[in-house]
Amino acid sequence: MRESKGVPKPKHRGTTPSADERLRRSKDDVRSSTLAATYELLTEVGLSGLSVDEVSRRSGVAKTTIYRHWPERSTLLLEACMQFSPRMQTPNTGSLKGDLEALALTMADRLRTGRWSSVLPSIIDAAERDTGIAELQRLQHAGFMSAFGTIVARAQERGELSPEQDATEITAAIAGPLFYRRWFSRQSIDPAFVRRIVNRAIA
Amino acid sequence: MRESKGVPKPKHRGTTPSADERLRRSKDDVRSSTLAATYELLTEVGLSGLSVDEVSRRSGVAKTTIYRHWPERSTLLLEACMQFSPRMQTPNTGSLKGDLEALALTMADRLRTGRWSSVLPSIIDAAERDTGIAELQRLQHAGFMSAFGTIVARAQERGELSPEQDATEITAAIAGPLFYRRWFSRQSIDPAFVRRIVNRAIA
Repeated sequence: MRESKGVPKPKHRGTTPSADERLRRSKDDVRSSTLAATYELLTEVGLSGLSVDEVSRRSGVAKTTIYRHWPERSTLLLEACMQFSPRMQTPNTGSLKGDLEALALTMADRLRTGRWSSVLPSIIDAAERDTGIAELQRLQHAGFMSAFGTIVARAQERGELSPEQDATEITAAIAGPLFYRRWFSRQSIDPAFVRRIVNRAIA
Repeated sequence: MRESKGVPKPKHRGTTPSADERLRRSKDDVRSSTLAATYELLTEVGLSGLSVDEVSRRSGVAKTTIYRHWPERSTLLLEACMQFSPRMQTPNTGSLKGDLEALALTMADRLRTGRWSSVLPSIIDAAERDTGIAELQRLQHAGFMSAFGTIVARAQERGELSPEQDATEITAAIAGPLFYRRWFSRQSIDPAFVRRIVNRAIA
């Protein structure tokens, strides 16, 4: 079983790993090689073109091993997305508007350049016809977007925003127009547009 | 060649169609049967599961005939979507807010119940990996959303809205959050949410 290029080799710093450690590391390698190959393929061919055969070929992990770790193809796909999708750090500028602008500008940047922005539509499409994928996608997405909730809660603690304001509504008012331009209208997303969207969201 | 169930048979009202008319009608039937079967399949299996074989089987139109009418699979898919996707009528309530609310509520309703809302992600996903589909999708989408432009232009003529306001930005600020809840966060879209989104968009 060969190691995938993207997976760093563990460093031993002069100690000899025990048999148990070797076994565990090998399991970790299998998981990370498989997940890395899956995500790489997702970005190249989309979910519809992705086969476990090809994941196996590219990762060097046997198909039977892949199926033992992920009995459902959908959980493999989702785990690959969860692991490699960019996390968004929560900015802390001291103001609601500053925080939301910083977060929205980061998101706009990732929509323009990120691999995940060409992978996500595959998941969204698959979710339309598979309730298991839909539920996993919803959970993963809520985690990915949690920085919005943190920013809104902090602004409410500071008394900058009414406690009645729904964080998910502000999230939709900001992420929605950005996603819309990226995938639906296919228009450019420039920083001035992002700032005006943030202004509207907290108006 | 059998006729598809969904296609109404032409009525002759006592006249006998000429050979030319028969030929033309037959061509129209072929096109509409194929497009209806394509759209039906798109809603059932998505774009990734859709084959011309299955379109042929379901429509009763020979594969060679389908390829003669649509040499590219992507043009068949897009034409099916353009023909069967719901057109949105432009409301005319006399006020910008009234018009946008009426349009956004109609759109929210179609997102909840419409077939096209389970087809669109397939097109969006395919567009990520095919620039031809991406361009067709962008054009089709601009047409589908044109009611927003009409509403904004009318409000600007009435002096209700500054001529500097960009119609596509107001469209993104309204359609974006609705699409976001339907496909990304998978939250409900109730009328109160729709109204607050419209308020933000024209704030």
